[in-house]
Amino acid sequence: MGSVLSVNAQRLVADLEALGQIGRVAAGGLSRTSFSATDTEARNWYFERCAEAGLTVVVDGLGNLIVSSPDVVPETTDRPAVWSGSHIDTVPNGGQFDGALGAIAALECLRRIHEEGIVLERPVRSIVYTDEEGSYAHLLGSSALARGYSLAELEAMNGRDGDRFVDAFTAAGGNLDAATRTKIDPATLHATVELHIEQGPTLENLGHEIGVVTGIVGLGGGSVTFRGRADHAGTTPMLGRKDALVAAGALVVAFPDLAARIGDGAVITSGVISVEPGSANVIPELVHVTVDFRHPDANQLAALEAEIRGAARAIADQYGVDVSIDLEPSIPPAPLNQGIQDLIAAAAAARGLSSSCLPSGAGHDSQNMATLAPTGMIFVPSIDGRSHCPQENTSWIDVENGANVLLDTLIQLAGS
Amino acid sequence: MGSVLSVNAQRLVADLEALGQIGRVAAGGLSRTSFSATDTEARNWYFERCAEAGLTVVVDGLGNLIVSSPDVVPETTDRPAVWSGSHIDTVPNGGQFDGALGAIAALECLRRIHEEGIVLERPVRSIVYTDEEGSYAHLLGSSALARGYSLAELEAMNGRDGDRFVDAFTAAGGNLDAATRTKIDPATLHATVELHIEQGPTLENLGHEIGVVTGIVGLGGGSVTFRGRADHAGTTPMLGRKDALVAAGALVVAFPDLAARIGDGAVITSGVISVEPGSANVIPELVHVTVDFRHPDANQLAALEAEIRGAARAIADQYGVDVSIDLEPSIPPAPLNQGIQDLIAAAAAARGLSSSCLPSGAGHDSQNMATLAPTGMIFVPSIDGRSHCPQENTSWIDVENGANVLLDTLIQLAGS
Repeated sequence: MGSVLSVNAQRLVADLEALGQIGRVAAGGLSRTSFSATDTEARNWYFERCAEAGLTVVVDGLGNLIVSSPDVVPETTDRPAVWSGSHIDTVPNGGQFDGALGAIAALECLRRIHEEGIVLERPVRSIVYTDEEGSYAHLLGSSALARGYSLAELEAMNGRDGDRFVDAFTAAGGNLDAATRTKIDPATLHATVELHIEQGPTLENLGHEIGVVTGIVGLGGGSVTFRGRADHAGTTPMLGRKDALVAAGALVVAFPDLAARIGDGAVITSGVISVEPGSANVIPELVHVTVDFRHPDANQLAALEAEIRGAARAIADQYGVDVSIDLEPSIPPAPLNQGIQDLIAAAAAARGLSSSCLPSGAGHDSQNMATLAPTGMIFVPSIDGRSHCPQENTSWIDVENGANVLLDTLIQLAGS
Repeated sequence: MGSVLSVNAQRLVADLEALGQIGRVAAGGLSRTSFSATDTEARNWYFERCAEAGLTVVVDGLGNLIVSSPDVVPETTDRPAVWSGSHIDTVPNGGQFDGALGAIAALECLRRIHEEGIVLERPVRSIVYTDEEGSYAHLLGSSALARGYSLAELEAMNGRDGDRFVDAFTAAGGNLDAATRTKIDPATLHATVELHIEQGPTLENLGHEIGVVTGIVGLGGGSVTFRGRADHAGTTPMLGRKDALVAAGALVVAFPDLAARIGDGAVITSGVISVEPGSANVIPELVHVTVDFRHPDANQLAALEAEIRGAARAIADQYGVDVSIDLEPSIPPAPLNQGIQDLIAAAAAARGLSSSCLPSGAGHDSQNMATLAPTGMIFVPSIDGRSHCPQENTSWIDVENGANVLLDTLIQLAGS
């Protein structure tokens, strides 16, 4: 190619704005949880964009959308493909960039390659992964591609509101038999790349335009439950109380110090707490707090877990309550491909964009795809670090820059 | 009287055991919340006991039951009366002694006076107060007697499940017009005495049989709300977070120290906490904790409130979150009548029972009755200090002792 191919920024922005109207709720954000009516509306809108561009959509057994341009050079279509994409479902009252940016930018890259008739050695495909936000299971669509699900596993999945996955899935036209066969042959993949908003403040604080993602942090989580004794708030002296909420409070207050002991990159959060009996004049007997902890390094992640377990036990002793620690096996950190990191950094530099390397603190479908093929991720800045909320925002110039770096990277990987 | 009159312990125990079967739930305790079907069943059972004993029941406009023996000496019936009673409603999954003991012991005293044909200068009445546990309003029945309620106040009352008081009340046959006229003329009362379980560990720890209640502690309460920022739990470094739950945890953890600064008798409890958005991977934005604080002395109660307010503001500053403190006006401590305290202590001593003076950490209908007439309360030990739970228990000998001290005190007050 003589001149550098770039995305059609006007079309990209118009698409993000149009998609950003689907599922708009009174609270100001977007609610397009998987298999909801608004998610279906967004998927239908995406189908229309593909049809309009002359692209072909294949829907796999779990609803992942795989978009191809018609065969330009037939002998290349069966070669391992370069995938790029993200998701278009959202958390309840979420923002318009998380997922949508990577899904629409990938579509835009494929559109540009298709409409310019660019011949590449390997096919490029634009992907929409199902239920990334985990209305039924975290990273559902890419997990199915990477590991497959048995019918029993699908039947055990329940939604946030207690509804069953299989009911929502079949109501949306899904076939359970096909769902259990959704696992991809890694030999059909050459590489995958995902563009995403950072969802944190790092790039903005550095004043950098492109993030080269080094890996996705390891994640541990579950819950800690303290059991004390439900006594009367008025008649029980402070000494001798077994107050499960005081113990839980002590654990949550300790999180910043526990994370600081491990050092940079460690985070610990409790986002949900429940109290029984839950009466203003009864000392809490049973308090359940969720724990979410992350670190980019597997050993440090294990050390962080040990700190949390040790603190929970010490606090239980201190306050005379029982404790049970129920943490699920950690998801190990997922390092991303160094070669693709280099391609992303080079593409940014060639376009005169500042970039820095950083880990992703959030989970992404790319961590599953990285188990199948060399995988990379590109971040663009999130204004004020916000995500999963109506304030989630990224400037249009950062959107355009990120999409262009994605386009460059995909063309490099597909072999121009 | 030649020999000392005593209660019929066998009948008293049988009645407490029979009443203790009404509203028994699978969780092991009793659920007789006001205006529920089981509360109605308990009231009907109480009516039958009164009828069986030849006693007359008057139901006032808010459902308080006022039981009299038929006129033995007609000219005494219009004299200011001596009231004794408690309540037979319970908290959800509560115990069989809280309220029931005082209500049935008062009935037993009246039965003994009636069946022995004892002539007293003033009438003795056995009372059951409506909704002491506050399914709709704390100490509802005695509050109505002491201060009266307007229709607007009754219409504004909602139950734990959000149902309206006026609906439950009229469904149970109540008349709203009569309800607004339920306020007693203090001139009709000579004194009131309530027997109750301690609901705390003090008498048991001292090894004493009778508690002479000096007063009911003052009570403050409401809620503290911290507002931080809902950021992603993975992508937001620990430094710079605005975590409302860490702030709320710090407040709850501080309660024992804040109470210790004020000293003996101060208690602070948080029994309910709620978190928004309430997702395991989102930093809590809005956390609401209830606060219940008590002290027997009005000045110390005010000092305790100031400690809580100061701590909440300092913690908000420390964690970079906003705070709003929403405490209702405190209910002042209610000292009980010294003369009646002396009568109770003397009655215990005369029966060879050990006694000690102590405040009540819980609210009781007696705090309302104390605004109308000289009022006293008798405590008996709670095993292991438990109440408001299935484990709530008092030995039968303590039940008998408490009822006999009540009987002696009522006879002294009514004038033998």
